[in-house]
This record gives sequence, C-alpha cells and structure tokens, in this order.
Amino acid sequence: MTAPATRRVTSLMAAIADTGRDRTRGGYTRPVYSTAELDLRGWFVAEAQARGLDVETDRNGVIWAWWDLPSRDRAGAIVTGSHLDSVPGGGAFDGPLGVASALAAVDVLREQGRRPDRALAIAVFPEEEGSRYGIACLGSRILTGAIAVEKALALKDEDGGTFAEHSRAAGLDPERMGPDAERLAQIGAFIELHVEQGRGLIDLGQPVAIGSSILGHGRWRLTFTGQGNHAGTTLMRDRHDPLVAAAGVIAQIPGIAARHEGARATVGRLQPVPGGTNVIASRVDVWLDVRHPEDAVTALVVEQIAALARDLAAGQGCGVDLREESLSPTTHFDPGLRRRLEDALPDAPVLDTGAGHDAGILAAHVPTAMLFVRNPTGVSHAHEEHVEDDDAETGAEVLADALMGDLGIA
Amino acid sequence: MTAPATRRVTSLMAAIADTGRDRTRGGYTRPVYSTAELDLRGWFVAEAQARGLDVETDRNGVIWAWWDLPSRDRAGAIVTGSHLDSVPGGGAFDGPLGVASALAAVDVLREQGRRPDRALAIAVFPEEEGSRYGIACLGSRILTGAIAVEKALALKDEDGGTFAEHSRAAGLDPERMGPDAERLAQIGAFIELHVEQGRGLIDLGQPVAIGSSILGHGRWRLTFTGQGNHAGTTLMRDRHDPLVAAAGVIAQIPGIAARHEGARATVGRLQPVPGGTNVIASRVDVWLDVRHPEDAVTALVVEQIAALARDLAAGQGCGVDLREESLSPTTHFDPGLRRRLEDALPDAPVLDTGAGHDAGILAAHVPTAMLFVRNPTGVSHAHEEHVEDDDAETGAEVLADALMGDLGIA
Repeated sequence: MTAPATRRVTSLMAAIADTGRDRTRGGYTRPVYSTAELDLRGWFVAEAQARGLDVETDRNGVIWAWWDLPSRDRAGAIVTGSHLDSVPGGGAFDGPLGVASALAAVDVLREQGRRPDRALAIAVFPEEEGSRYGIACLGSRILTGAIAVEKALALKDEDGGTFAEHSRAAGLDPERMGPDAERLAQIGAFIELHVEQGRGLIDLGQPVAIGSSILGHGRWRLTFTGQGNHAGTTLMRDRHDPLVAAAGVIAQIPGIAARHEGARATVGRLQPVPGGTNVIASRVDVWLDVRHPEDAVTALVVEQIAALARDLAAGQGCGVDLREESLSPTTHFDPGLRRRLEDALPDAPVLDTGAGHDAGILAAHVPTAMLFVRNPTGVSHAHEEHVEDDDAETGAEVLADALMGDLGIA
Repeated sequence: MTAPATRRVTSLMAAIADTGRDRTRGGYTRPVYSTAELDLRGWFVAEAQARGLDVETDRNGVIWAWWDLPSRDRAGAIVTGSHLDSVPGGGAFDGPLGVASALAAVDVLREQGRRPDRALAIAVFPEEEGSRYGIACLGSRILTGAIAVEKALALKDEDGGTFAEHSRAAGLDPERMGPDAERLAQIGAFIELHVEQGRGLIDLGQPVAIGSSILGHGRWRLTFTGQGNHAGTTLMRDRHDPLVAAAGVIAQIPGIAARHEGARATVGRLQPVPGGTNVIASRVDVWLDVRHPEDAVTALVVEQIAALARDLAAGQGCGVDLREESLSPTTHFDPGLRRRLEDALPDAPVLDTGAGHDAGILAAHVPTAMLFVRNPTGVSHAHEEHVEDDDAETGAEVLADALMGDLGIA
C-alpha cells in the first residue's frame, strides 16, 4: 500500500464539499430526502452515468448503478456502496467516502484493464443514520424486511411529516415499498467501504482495515412526565419537574456503562416540553443509545438505566416510560468472505466497530464484508472527522482489489 | 364580592378560546407576532373599536385603546392592560385575562353610568413572556429604555429570525423603535390585572388580591462545550461529553435552591448540539431562571450553580461559559397607590409574586399596581391554569372600582 499518485476519490469528494454545509453546527447536515441529500443523489447518478453505468432507483429508494457484463445476468452480483445522508453537523466522509470510493474503484479497474468476473453494482442506501426518522439503516431494513413497511412509512421527522410523505415528495410510491427478495437475490456479496469512526487504525499505523463485526446496538426512548408550571411562582417543594429526574439519569449513565467493559451508552438528544426558559417542563423525551459486543450486556445496561430512571422519577413525583425504538444484535460478517479479503489484503488489520451500517442489516441475508479507512482524528459524527487524501486513494485501490478477488461466492 | 350575574369576561374569553391552541403540548402557543398572537391583537382592536375606544399602535408595538374624555387631554391617564402572547403550551388566562377584564371593566363603568375623572387607556404589550426572543417584558423594556433598542432588535428566535425582521413583518418600523418619554408621561397610573400564578388565593379563600412586589428575577445561559463524536465508536473513557456535565448541574439545582428559603431556580429549556441520537454532543446550551425576594440571594444562587458547573465540566474535560441574559431586581409597587387600592378593596389580601410582568418594568417610571385573580389549580404556564367564571367577573368589577378609585395621582 504505497501512496497513490492519482487523486480519484479526492476529486470526487471535492465536487460535493459545499453541499449541505451546516453553518451553525459546523460540518454537514444532509438528512435523507432533504435538498442537500437529493443533490448528492443527483451527483451520484450523474457520475455513474458518466461512467456508462446503468442507473436505477428501486421501489425502496435505493439507487443501483450497474456495470453489466454482456455474458452475465445480474443475479449474484458483487455490490459495493454506502449512503449519502448525514447526522446533523456530521463529517464529510461518513457515507460519501464509500460511494466516491466505489466510483473510483470502477475507474481503477477500467484503467488497469480489469473487469470483475460477474456483474458489479454500486448501491446508495437512504436514511442510514436514522437522523431524520429515528431508525438507522431504514432503507436496508425495509428492503430486507427487518422493519414492517407500515411502521416505517408512519415514522415522523421532527416537523411531524411522515417518511411516506417525504418518500412520495422524492418521487417514490410508498404503496410499492416493502421487502424485495428479488433484489436481494441479485446480491452475491456486499462490500461496504467506510471511514473508520474510532481510533483503531491510528494506533495500528495502517490506512485500511477489514471489518469483523458490528456491535449490538439499540435505541430507546425514555419519556419522563411531571407537572408543567411557572418557574417563578412554584415553590421548590411544590414541584414535579421531569427534567430534574432525567438529568439525574443522564449524569449517571457514564458510570453505569463503565461497569461493563466495552459498553457504550449515550444520550445525545433530549427534548423538554414545552421548552420555555420560565416554564417547569411537563414532559422530557430522552433518546438513549446503547451498544456492546454481547447482546445480553446491552440489555443489562438498559435495565440498569431504566431502574435508575424509575427511582429518580419517583423521587420527583414524576413518571417514566421506556420504549425500545430499534434493536440490532451483534453482527458478524461472513467468515469466508472475510478470509478471502485477508488473503487479498495481507497488511490490513481486522477490526470490529461500534457503528451501525447497512452492511450489518444485509449481513443477515447475503455474504457481507466491510473495509474501514483511517480517520486521523478518531472523531466521527462531527466536523473533525477526516481522511487524508493518500488514505482515501489507497482505500479505493484496496476496494478495487477486493471487488476483483476470488470472493468465493457461488 | 358576591357572585356577579353577567358573564362579561367569560364571553370575551370564549371568542379567543380556539386561537393558538397547541395540539402537541396542550394549552396555547401564542408567540409574539405569530399568526395566533396577531389574531388576538386583531380581536382586541375590534373589541375596543366596538366600544368606541380610540385605538393606536405605538412605534414599539404596544396597542393603546383610549376612552377619551372631552374635558381632559391624555396626560396622566389611568392605564390598565396586560399582554396576549404566551409561553409554549401556556394557559388561557396568563395575559388575555387582564386584557379581557380591562374591556369588561369599561363595560361595567358605562353600565353603571360612571366615568373616570381622567382619560383611561387599555394597553397591550408585546413579548411579555420572552418566550420568542428570550427577554421577558421586551415591549415595556424598550418603551422605558430598560433595554438598548439595538440589542432588542438583534435578538433572534429559535429559527434565527430577528426581532427587527418580525417587527417589520408585523407592520412596525424598527428604525423608529426606542424609549418613549412622551408616552410614559401619558401614564398617570398603571394597574395590571393578572391570573395568579401560585396558590396564595386558594389558601386564603379569596377571589382577588392586591400585588405588593415582584421577586427579583434573572435569566442566564450556561454553554457547556466538549468534543462531538460517534456514540457507538467512542469508548466511554475517551469522551468529553458536555451533556453529562450539564445534566449533573441540572440534577443538583433543586438542592442548591432549597438551601435558600424562598429561592426558585429552574431549567426548563436546553439544547444539545447537534442533537442526534447517535452523536455525543459537542455543545449544550442550558437556560437558567433564578428568582428571590433579595437580589443578593439571587446572585448567590447563580454563583453556586456556576461553581458547580465549572467543577462538573472540568470533570468531563469540558468547558463552560455563563452569560447573563436579563436581570431585574425585586420591584415594590407604588405604596400610595397600593394603600388606596387596599382602602377600595378591604377584603383583598396583599401578595407578592415570583412572576415578572410589564407592571414591574413600568414601576420604575410611573405609579404601578397589580391585581391577581384566583387560580384554583395554582398551576400556570401550562394548560391546567384556570380561573372560575365567577372569579373572572369579580376581577373585572374590582378592576372597574380600582380605575374609579381616588388613586391619588397628581
């Protein structure tokens, strides 16, 4: 893996560097089906068509760009790709790097006169982050049937609009959405390249890693209810303030997580209602994100947090309700595919990740692998996320090799 | 104070019962210069004109409805009134009760063939709650010069629009806004009737009280800053999570306030940035509301909270910044005016209040008094706020007597 001279990925990424910038938070805010994300989808379609790829958007909003081979149909194709949506104030690389690297990998193969021994597609999935409708990997979940389509269509964003309404506005037909076995049968293997979201490759001094597994991961919503009242006239002893209870829980979450090696528990979003400076809240919604390699430990962490929440809510004369919003068990990528990638990329370390990916959802149905590209800040979901140009180009070349490798698929 | 037969206030309030209802939070959301508040202003103007009052909106957006007397000019007039804006999810009575009661008091006087011995006006003040631009009593503050007009015009609402822009859209000229000594000189005495926002009158078994003072009151913004990052990939020990620090402070605020008899300290609004479920926040803004009859105690409570915030932020490797957004010392209403109201209303108890009011701002410039009407729930700034019909009518009749009383103004 020596430094490449051609700046394929860098020049692709430069073309979208101004799309969806968030001047308030820093970084990018590109929620699915927003103007910014639709612009990125348009950019991808144009780049794919410029390469002579055959582009189609399926009935679930996944974009597929096909490098067809005359002698082959599309069944059992090699598929790579990622997503273009972002969290609020996210980095430039989380998602787009995998899409740009896929386009660059096609260029690499063609420049080298190589072509894969089966049809190849680049896929772009909608709402990977779950930042708009609250459920991550929504596109791949609908495609695989991991979420009931009725539930998905009814999901609302912060402004109260539904996924069904926004899908329709984006040109899709919500009536036609749902599990797609035919589409899944086209995927012989799925390989997603993604920016690393931790510090693993920094410490190992390597530009690219092979993924081994995705930590089990769930989202829960804690709703604390109390008595809304006037902040000036209500004596401290007469209060039932749900934000005091919620804050007590949030303050103790790191201590609970730290008791379980490898556990991560986070509150990054909460909403007091009504949310006025001079108003004691009547309700507080708190979103909780918990992950651990062992699903039983994830459940235990959540139960400990829930028990604390019940205690502290009762102490304020408040109530609390816990609802699971999504839960994915730990996913191990296909061992055979991983072994072949290890053969093709002998320098690359093998790492697991605490981040969810569409590859994790697809892994239950098709042989799936991931490649991670070094992030020198170790920071993700924030503007500090970064990939050096050389590492990005190396990633695309490694992806090209991976797509050409004997992937052992039937 | 026997139960009145005529439903003057109740029928006025019924006409606006559907304006600005908040189906999500319950109650009403009527931010200043929103469609809902503009509708209420239109309702007031129509009701005043139907009574032959001479209506004008001054250059600061305060509406004045004049009952002129042929033999008198407007200098040194008796003025009553309140506001029509609400907190998010507020009650029906906070503000509108004072406006409706003022209209009803004019009706009472005319039906009884009485007329005040000097010009009388009903005033409606904009942005009393401070729920849109963060500073309470903004209209009366600008009128009296209690806030620099440049600072007021630059204030932003949650969507980033400025008070100047929204004032212009409401038909005002921001260039002409500012202190108005001429207008103040028209006010010989100001009497504001308001729903009680605590439990004082419930315990005393009386429908109406005379106000003695408004507790000193301030708003501060605490901004905690840390390192935004990915909730799944960032180990607990690598985090600098500002929401954990902020939550620790909020959880301990009731304990700090309880150490100071009579103090009230509240956080009802906070905003993690970027605010994604799977994102460790990079910043959290927390709005703090503190009130106490002694201004030195208010300052002490804030300093104790700030010291805790610095401690807990440092413990998370985070920073914290404290900024005063507004501060009003304890206000005592005019002793002479109050004594004359006590003579006119011998049954009415005398109460102070923890809530801010335009009357508190005007009190620094003109003789000012308040009347409070019983709230059988003791709850305010929430949909449970209530006034019984009989008490509302009694309030209007008491206000009529107060406006006719020998107020001792020169």
